[in-house]
Amino acid sequence: MQMLNPSLVSTSRPPVMEARRWIEGVSFPPERPLLNLSQAAPVDPPPEPLRRAMAEAALNQPDAHLYGPVLGRDALRQAVARDWSHAYGATIRPEEVAITQGCNQAFCAAITLLAAPGDEVILPLPWYFNHKMWLDMQGVRTVGLHCGADMLPDPGAAARLITDRTRAIVLVSPNNPSGAEYPAELMRAFHDLARSRGIALIVDETYRDFDSREGAPHDLFTDPDWGETLIHLYSFSKAYRLTGHRVGALIASPDRMIEIEKFLDTVAICAGQIGQIGAAWGMANMKEWLAGERAEILARRRAMAEGMAGLDGWRVKGCGAYFAWAEHPYDMTSPDLARMLVHKAGLLLLPGTMFMPDGDAEGARHVRIAFANADVSGIAALVQRLQAFRP
Amino acid sequence: MQMLNPSLVSTSRPPVMEARRWIEGVSFPPERPLLNLSQAAPVDPPPEPLRRAMAEAALNQPDAHLYGPVLGRDALRQAVARDWSHAYGATIRPEEVAITQGCNQAFCAAITLLAAPGDEVILPLPWYFNHKMWLDMQGVRTVGLHCGADMLPDPGAAARLITDRTRAIVLVSPNNPSGAEYPAELMRAFHDLARSRGIALIVDETYRDFDSREGAPHDLFTDPDWGETLIHLYSFSKAYRLTGHRVGALIASPDRMIEIEKFLDTVAICAGQIGQIGAAWGMANMKEWLAGERAEILARRRAMAEGMAGLDGWRVKGCGAYFAWAEHPYDMTSPDLARMLVHKAGLLLLPGTMFMPDGDAEGARHVRIAFANADVSGIAALVQRLQAFRP
Repeated sequence: MQMLNPSLVSTSRPPVMEARRWIEGVSFPPERPLLNLSQAAPVDPPPEPLRRAMAEAALNQPDAHLYGPVLGRDALRQAVARDWSHAYGATIRPEEVAITQGCNQAFCAAITLLAAPGDEVILPLPWYFNHKMWLDMQGVRTVGLHCGADMLPDPGAAARLITDRTRAIVLVSPNNPSGAEYPAELMRAFHDLARSRGIALIVDETYRDFDSREGAPHDLFTDPDWGETLIHLYSFSKAYRLTGHRVGALIASPDRMIEIEKFLDTVAICAGQIGQIGAAWGMANMKEWLAGERAEILARRRAMAEGMAGLDGWRVKGCGAYFAWAEHPYDMTSPDLARMLVHKAGLLLLPGTMFMPDGDAEGARHVRIAFANADVSGIAALVQRLQAFRP
Repeated sequence: MQMLNPSLVSTSRPPVMEARRWIEGVSFPPERPLLNLSQAAPVDPPPEPLRRAMAEAALNQPDAHLYGPVLGRDALRQAVARDWSHAYGATIRPEEVAITQGCNQAFCAAITLLAAPGDEVILPLPWYFNHKMWLDMQGVRTVGLHCGADMLPDPGAAARLITDRTRAIVLVSPNNPSGAEYPAELMRAFHDLARSRGIALIVDETYRDFDSREGAPHDLFTDPDWGETLIHLYSFSKAYRLTGHRVGALIASPDRMIEIEKFLDTVAICAGQIGQIGAAWGMANMKEWLAGERAEILARRRAMAEGMAGLDGWRVKGCGAYFAWAEHPYDMTSPDLARMLVHKAGLLLLPGTMFMPDGDAEGARHVRIAFANADVSGIAALVQRLQAFRP
């Protein structure tokens, strides 16, 4: 029997695909259709003008079909540099921006830049599962950092976890899976900790467009030496409904970008051109539309928080951007509950165990609800179904 | 100073991007424009009907913009399974097919499946540079296997390189960079060697659509147990001119596919949907067109072989599909020659050193010419410019 890479074999299977298998062959009655709150995925395609811009490019723009630069199309890198400079009150240059085949790949690139097998990376708990999976398959040890009841990680606790093998701390804000929005001062404290210990701070801001706060979510880019510590990750998938095109971004210092380019050349050659064209078009033309999307998601968040507050036994620990992280009241594990909710309530959500180390009790007691996939009436249906649910 | 991953830092920079830097700021006279033979990249976009099909999908097909299954769209996996079964006279099932974000990523997935840091993988020399780069950055040792004067690797020589850390042998046929088409018996001999030693055989057939031979290029899939040994890689980029969309394929046994899915979920989530829709449309509707493309590339190959045969001092070692591997007659290294050819002949091609271990004399004496990027008159210009070139 052929030997396989033990680091890959010991990695868990993709949670979203596993959840999809739970609903295979299950029939849902028309009066109670499946409410799929498993994945943060816009249910609808991009609005017609963006679809039209991409269709035009496919039909009439030859370079939409040809290899582009490894680090991305110039126009998109420039647009990101310009918008980010404005948003963060800082100067970010196009050569500090790489375009990736989605934000997962940006994370993979950042970790491969920083960590060799045997090194350690600190992830607040609960973590985003694909982060854990990449660390696993790269032989990098994940060091979990438990959050407080407010779902915020503590820099002091993080400091105690740093060893001479630690290479990075990863923060996701707004958080996946907890929805927590990390205060600017907390981001600063983590940045200063990372800098003082000579490690990197990776900040994944995939959900930044749906942050409830106005203005810059942190001031880290205003530090002229940010590039020594900070690596920023972003996704165009949620803001412009481009999940199927796989376009993300990574912002890092130019000397690190030389190394990032090697990784992206080898794994990707380049990000898809049509997706990049769509992302640039969206940035140029959809600011108002995106503001409306944000308002809608914030309305869903309010509906979620209010609806869940009235639910006996449930306790929402975090709620923001696309996600709520909620403690359930049942005397069963979250995987058992999640599977039962498919059959008895027509609900698909992910058990907390998918976001926590094996055996951690918090995983069994919580679920992640990607509530922003549903509209306000869908959220009302969710609350109603949870209310009516009897194990 | 932050430590970086030494395996990534020691990896060489992307050759194609380095070559692009050689032509930055260089002006080429109108009577002798740049002839770029550095990258195997169709110069033109796909034909209009395929562009139209993709544009239609972008405009009217919602799922063209949304996440799809990690392993690819069902329709494309089914089409590959059907066509490959027919082409190889074998039974390949859709669940044995994964769609990747380009063929480079398929290779990355295969290696991550098989090899851990410290393991070894055998690559015939000259190698495809992105293969070497991925092995480097994963901490997997590349064991080079020198080819004979016919640019074919020898299974007996390979057998002597196998150790208890060897996990795979990689064959690329038609070859990049040499253009060599590996005989079916040679493929079989490598397969039997790999099987007998309990290692994998990875066969990259990115250029299979331009093989000069009729019929199946090998019979490996006819073995009912092929999945124990063989992993096949393919790219839709060259056949349908979809380089900018990043769509490739990997064929492996279902038990290995479970592990491949973990890798692809983490690095990609899914391949771009529009590119997958285009690839499936091309497979369904462009068979005749593709046959014409193949005839054209074979005509270019003849023009290349005949033209180069008349060139003093040059010796073409291999010529097929997109590439020729040629020994140059000059008393200088291939990187010096390649840079000089930009300025003195308006030619961009890649030095052999990019495909060989550091210090290997063969690298300095050879260049790779991606001749299929040029038409027959372009190839005539190439020959004429090389004839006229004086260092």
